[in-house]
Amino acid sequence: MILTRRRLFSTTVATGTALVAAPAIIRGLATPAEAKAPIAGTKAPSFYRFKLGEFEITALHDGEFARPLDASFVRNAPLEDVQKTLADNFLPTDKLTISFTALLVNTGSKLVLIDTGFNDNGGPTNGRVVSALKAAGYDPSMVDAVIFSHFHGDHLQGARTKAGQLVYPNAEMMVPAPEWDFWMDDAKMAAASEGMKGAFAGVRRVLQPNAADVKRFKWGDEVVTGITAVEAAGHTPGHTAFAIVSGNAKMMYVADVTNTPVLFATNPDWKVMFDMDADKAVATRKRILDMAATDKFQLSFYHASFPSTGFIAKAGAGYRFVPVQWS
Amino acid sequence: MILTRRRLFSTTVATGTALVAAPAIIRGLATPAEAKAPIAGTKAPSFYRFKLGEFEITALHDGEFARPLDASFVRNAPLEDVQKTLADNFLPTDKLTISFTALLVNTGSKLVLIDTGFNDNGGPTNGRVVSALKAAGYDPSMVDAVIFSHFHGDHLQGARTKAGQLVYPNAEMMVPAPEWDFWMDDAKMAAASEGMKGAFAGVRRVLQPNAADVKRFKWGDEVVTGITAVEAAGHTPGHTAFAIVSGNAKMMYVADVTNTPVLFATNPDWKVMFDMDADKAVATRKRILDMAATDKFQLSFYHASFPSTGFIAKAGAGYRFVPVQWS
Repeated sequence: MILTRRRLFSTTVATGTALVAAPAIIRGLATPAEAKAPIAGTKAPSFYRFKLGEFEITALHDGEFARPLDASFVRNAPLEDVQKTLADNFLPTDKLTISFTALLVNTGSKLVLIDTGFNDNGGPTNGRVVSALKAAGYDPSMVDAVIFSHFHGDHLQGARTKAGQLVYPNAEMMVPAPEWDFWMDDAKMAAASEGMKGAFAGVRRVLQPNAADVKRFKWGDEVVTGITAVEAAGHTPGHTAFAIVSGNAKMMYVADVTNTPVLFATNPDWKVMFDMDADKAVATRKRILDMAATDKFQLSFYHASFPSTGFIAKAGAGYRFVPVQWS
Repeated sequence: MILTRRRLFSTTVATGTALVAAPAIIRGLATPAEAKAPIAGTKAPSFYRFKLGEFEITALHDGEFARPLDASFVRNAPLEDVQKTLADNFLPTDKLTISFTALLVNTGSKLVLIDTGFNDNGGPTNGRVVSALKAAGYDPSMVDAVIFSHFHGDHLQGARTKAGQLVYPNAEMMVPAPEWDFWMDDAKMAAASEGMKGAFAGVRRVLQPNAADVKRFKWGDEVVTGITAVEAAGHTPGHTAFAIVSGNAKMMYVADVTNTPVLFATNPDWKVMFDMDADKAVATRKRILDMAATDKFQLSFYHASFPSTGFIAKAGAGYRFVPVQWS
């Protein structure tokens, strides 16, 4: 019998010919397994490892957060256009699931974590960087440096537990100087909206207790041997990407140069609500995506589908994100 | 300093401004972590879990195999066209890495494994289905049924160790009747080329010791409640896909309807060297991919990049595989 499309998934299909599977027990086996396995339910702590020259890179999935989708998410596109792009990618159109993936770089002499997720400051579907790190064979105490791309909570809050403890107690915290200058400016905080005041307070909660130990770096600095800060401002005033180079191998961690590339690589002119200087963010997005498409180096995003790393090709008026082949 | 493309990855970049990171030890911390973390090197046993109605589905990565790419791989396309498609997807053009992903379905009353990978009959980069199964919270003894899409070694050999032991001792083996009829036909084996004789012998190694217990099913049969065999012949004489239905949720395991979708969904007319009846395989491929694109149901492939599950959209003269968003 050859199934047609219309019959394929009909509930009446094949009931006349359904097999009655012989229970394992009647085959005389020692341990009949019939219906013994409960639904496991668990998820793997998700890490994905690859080599970059001599460096070992590990993508660590913090988890995700699903937000209702409304017209406020993309400021300059009709909601129906956003929904069409999602539908074209077989994603729901009533909500947007934003994924979070930090990057661990073992240079052979330093273990470096770039961005930290939420730890216990987020919700039940995120905060898993530490469990992914442990599954990947490391302990938080082994991390030598934590580098931040910028100070939004989904990147920064995971450096300190809700109770106030440092999550990576032996790591030097390294931050973009222009990001520090913005968020630590009391006058800017005083002038901010109530919502933004909360963001300022969140930054200070994490960074102020150890402010004297926080290393501030400039764009162009080689922050750790092989990891160089790249100006990527717009999303925030000090938003920074990182060029990672080992021998002839190179890649770039681009943080929030896009929110999900499904929407914002495809449509680089779209302005996501989180971009603080949206025009500058668009210009930065195009500059870095164009560079990646031309020079064909690998990118790691913070908000792409896990493992959130791959390549960028020009496609139509925008770009297409091509995830790496899992290996 | 704003980096231009030409300066970005140059080895001289930023050396003048390189930070000398303060060693953790001088910050007076209890456990200085400087250079303490060796390269971990390990990979995760890769499983990916999702719900389908009441069913729990787990994709289990057996691993991969890299083969040199030459003109024999696609029989009816110039090697340079194949290489261009690979390059467009940021893949190497001198070799092809073929990935293997089996599918575990827990229906709530049966734990069903569809295809088995290599176990210890392959090479060092595959044979990981059992470790992925264990990482996913199950033991091979819990598996109630092993269903085969067809009898090629990368799908079948993992059911029995090289030493001859059944890997899933309590599972009923269930096979497509037309596949059984072909490979168990002594006349066909006698008439086969030497290379094909090896393939016949491999099938018999796995299935003959327990031949009396092997359940043969027909296309259209509901093999296990919720899992229906779908005719997908061409790749092999009895090659079978499986419609999986729980409540209103449905998907299809399509096995080798394509080898890697990067090549063969994009170019459905291309004939991979492994397709035994290549014209029929092309017709089957188009029929099933067209059905998936029209009805928008999820597919699991055996040879897509892990987790090897997603959707199919029409694109140009062929189709585009859209992996699920990892969650």
